[in-house]
Amino acid sequence: MIEEWVLDSLSDATNIPIDYLRQLIEKGTIRFMKYRNVLYFSFRKRVRGIEEGTTVLISRNEDPLVVIGYSHIARVALPSIALPSHFIDKIVVEEKMDGYNVRVVFYAGNLFAITRGGLVCPYTTQKIRLLYGDKIKEFYKEYDPYKYFLAGEVVGKENPYVRKEYPEAPRFGYFIFDVFRENKPAPLSLRSEIVEKYKLNSVRVLGVIDKDDLDSFWRFLEQLDKEGREGVVLKDPEYRVEPLKYTTNVADISDIAHGMLFFGDEGRDYLYTRVLRLGFRLYEKPLGDIEKLYRELGRAILEPIVEAIRRGKRGEAGYEEFTLSFTSYLDAQEFVEFMEQLGLELTVVDIVEDNSEIRLIVRKPKLETEKLLARVLKTGLFGYD
Amino acid sequence: MIEEWVLDSLSDATNIPIDYLRQLIEKGTIRFMKYRNVLYFSFRKRVRGIEEGTTVLISRNEDPLVVIGYSHIARVALPSIALPSHFIDKIVVEEKMDGYNVRVVFYAGNLFAITRGGLVCPYTTQKIRLLYGDKIKEFYKEYDPYKYFLAGEVVGKENPYVRKEYPEAPRFGYFIFDVFRENKPAPLSLRSEIVEKYKLNSVRVLGVIDKDDLDSFWRFLEQLDKEGREGVVLKDPEYRVEPLKYTTNVADISDIAHGMLFFGDEGRDYLYTRVLRLGFRLYEKPLGDIEKLYRELGRAILEPIVEAIRRGKRGEAGYEEFTLSFTSYLDAQEFVEFMEQLGLELTVVDIVEDNSEIRLIVRKPKLETEKLLARVLKTGLFGYD
Repeated sequence: MIEEWVLDSLSDATNIPIDYLRQLIEKGTIRFMKYRNVLYFSFRKRVRGIEEGTTVLISRNEDPLVVIGYSHIARVALPSIALPSHFIDKIVVEEKMDGYNVRVVFYAGNLFAITRGGLVCPYTTQKIRLLYGDKIKEFYKEYDPYKYFLAGEVVGKENPYVRKEYPEAPRFGYFIFDVFRENKPAPLSLRSEIVEKYKLNSVRVLGVIDKDDLDSFWRFLEQLDKEGREGVVLKDPEYRVEPLKYTTNVADISDIAHGMLFFGDEGRDYLYTRVLRLGFRLYEKPLGDIEKLYRELGRAILEPIVEAIRRGKRGEAGYEEFTLSFTSYLDAQEFVEFMEQLGLELTVVDIVEDNSEIRLIVRKPKLETEKLLARVLKTGLFGYD
Repeated sequence: MIEEWVLDSLSDATNIPIDYLRQLIEKGTIRFMKYRNVLYFSFRKRVRGIEEGTTVLISRNEDPLVVIGYSHIARVALPSIALPSHFIDKIVVEEKMDGYNVRVVFYAGNLFAITRGGLVCPYTTQKIRLLYGDKIKEFYKEYDPYKYFLAGEVVGKENPYVRKEYPEAPRFGYFIFDVFRENKPAPLSLRSEIVEKYKLNSVRVLGVIDKDDLDSFWRFLEQLDKEGREGVVLKDPEYRVEPLKYTTNVADISDIAHGMLFFGDEGRDYLYTRVLRLGFRLYEKPLGDIEKLYRELGRAILEPIVEAIRRGKRGEAGYEEFTLSFTSYLDAQEFVEFMEQLGLELTVVDIVEDNSEIRLIVRKPKLETEKLLARVLKTGLFGYD
């Protein structure tokens, strides 16, 4: 049961009548959660103009805080068509990093890290507090936390969502890409100012180009592709139009390689969407040698399938394994409970204490891949065709 | 309305009560069709032990003829596991041809060609009558048409279903793979006897191997792959167990290349299933150079996407075009009506008369590919992610 004052707060904050809120909570459209001293609601769908992924934080001694969901960014298929027609004049070309989207807010005396889905992630929150807490709190001293918040990408190998090593953040790093003001992304000049002033990290700005300057655009893409980076987000400097995103060949191919290792689970969708991205890109511009691209794509598809079968024979095909680090057992336990609450059955297979750090070796199940491989390894037959 | 005597006939032939038959026809599980002087029912799902694809032919002056559906053949993923465990001792290794499955029956004085789905195809029927009518009728003079029928693959470039050129049948050829006796596939020796006696074509028998002789199996596969052929069907010589099928790399890759040209329609499923086949095969045996396989696969995926975009710019992405030939306008019209009846909207874009042959240039719509390309070419954006 949710107490009356909590619903009152939510209703005040969102201008949605209490009865309707009750229905939405009942249906699961709005999720009610708790993280330590703070209660919150997260919107799993757009409701009455309130974005999907919006979070409303509530505490007895504070006004509620509405943190708007981070909008979906449309993906470019053909830059030569999209760029000139979508943008107004200038385009800020920023690096798109391959991690997960996190909004960091200040509420009831502390920082909270909110995922794209609108949930306060205990793991990310602890890491952000530990690694960037002082600097971000400084920021919130001067910028009203009811008016401003930060949005950025968490990257690195140690997180429960997207694991990719970055030289500048091998384990965990937070790179700011937007400052929100009154629940709208502010002009990028404000972000530069803030990042510089509080010594925070931001995503890399590759340059500012004219919307018709496809040559410069492709030079940036080629550079990122060579460096093995994910791609770009294209923004109007003043945020007068929505941003767009675009990836490199190397990113699409590495997604495929990852997906095919778990071909029964994410493989199917990964493969199809990524090859279309590659194909449309190739139509406009081969980023390097075409024969090499063909070979790399073929390899990214087939090598992981072979590897998955080998893992299947060893009984290891049914999960992905990774490490999460915590500073206390309490933090670790809190995170595991959070994942259980979300229905993500992570299994902790080992715990290592190391320099006062607690490292959890965690497995994420890949049940469809496991089932398919078990069947094939037993009968030698595909079951489905 | 179906006349009472027709339903009586169907009920007699299948041992299914009339009331239940009516329900099944109402629901569309059994389809009622007409081809010239013959009425027929086709079973779109398995009903009371009667296979999916079964056809019951009915005519006022004849007993009804039940033609059992051709069973699905399971696909091998890992031959080293499937072959020894599935078969009893010997395996007949036959070539699998890349066309469509057709049962040829004799009823009410004439031959009828029935597709896998249990429909009498007017086009195929006319071609079979024209090209093989005399020989097959000879066969049915000596082999009771109520007891025997032929099953085989139609291949070549001129048909409405699967178009692939074979040197031995560039336009249209019928290759027998089974003789059915009392609605069960007969031992393969009978097929050899009949094919030889009536000078019909059968699929190629590559050899008979021991079920543990994987070396010979792979030699056949390598040979077929080099020749650019589709694959094999593996059969117990006496049909004591069900057959299995297995394809070559070149077949899987050519399927992908075809599918990706219409990536919005068949691309997604084609791609996923074929790369799994390739991956499981690679785990057991690279059929040739692996780097070359990677490159060929990558090329088969990306080249057709680029080609599809080019076609999209020319307004040609939304259909597949092919030729069908007829000996009379009546035959042509009959076929077009048949396709319309099935909801396959083929568009005839041109008619050419040539040596007393009527050639229809036909287009099969690929609406999803067309829609997706139109959107991307207009906005430069993917609509869905």
